[in-house]
Amino acid sequence: MTLAVQDRYPESLAYCFGCGRLNEHGHHIRTLWDGDETVAVFTPEPFHIAVSGFVYGGVLASLVDCHSTGTAAAAAYRAAGREPGTEPALRFVTGSLHVDYLKPTPLGVPLTIRARVIEMKGRKVVVESTVYAEGVATVTGKVVAVQIPEDFGKS
Amino acid sequence: MTLAVQDRYPESLAYCFGCGRLNEHGHHIRTLWDGDETVAVFTPEPFHIAVSGFVYGGVLASLVDCHSTGTAAAAAYRAAGREPGTEPALRFVTGSLHVDYLKPTPLGVPLTIRARVIEMKGRKVVVESTVYAEGVATVTGKVVAVQIPEDFGKS
Repeated sequence: MTLAVQDRYPESLAYCFGCGRLNEHGHHIRTLWDGDETVAVFTPEPFHIAVSGFVYGGVLASLVDCHSTGTAAAAAYRAAGREPGTEPALRFVTGSLHVDYLKPTPLGVPLTIRARVIEMKGRKVVVESTVYAEGVATVTGKVVAVQIPEDFGKS
Repeated sequence: MTLAVQDRYPESLAYCFGCGRLNEHGHHIRTLWDGDETVAVFTPEPFHIAVSGFVYGGVLASLVDCHSTGTAAAAAYRAAGREPGTEPALRFVTGSLHVDYLKPTPLGVPLTIRARVIEMKGRKVVVESTVYAEGVATVTGKVVAVQIPEDFGKS
């Protein structure tokens, strides 16, 4: 089994509701490399609905969010020539999130999220992503991910 | 007790994971008027974390999302001189969602989301919102909400 970048976050950073492997209630989004892109697969629960038959937009935004910050981390490790999981940890939070809902996303099928880094500059990584249901693009997203500073949350 | 716009959605549209009163697993976001603004209050669960002590961005995006589509519905009823809950139902979905994370949002306190309509044109309503924790703005959002067409999800 191939390890996702989130599988190698240090324990203190592995409780995210979207992608933390240690959050019992979370989505457990897992980001893997596929060439120069990253890919994640997620099957929403029956109760993740917007209206009957379709996936809730906030869950789709969460997929875009965590797969993008995961992609930013994976790309930062790759750019540094390091393996994910090595110290010091490279972990990103979301500075801004933009999601376009192209069409309703059907509920009950696995969703594939593909992402690509379009800019890396200093501590900032910009990631574009697309959500596919049964091969059809239903959502596109753009995230500005920012590497967690040492003093995160202290001010 | 004052009724929120979501309390008066018809049953068929009341299962949204973010704001549906009938979704047992959902967030139950409730949008109320406060003058020309709308307000919602939501307290994240302990497991809605990003990193220790702070709220997960996908949940914050969900608050922005559902409070904005609820605000769009409330504003559409008000513009039509109608009470929410009267037929035909005015219900909106999200065309696009933009969220800026200004600073980490502390976990463990009630969050207040305030929104305002900045444009109404045809079936489209643009809503801007701000999330406050203990009086401090931590997140701003902008949603383009689109009134659900009769044939929603059929193509």
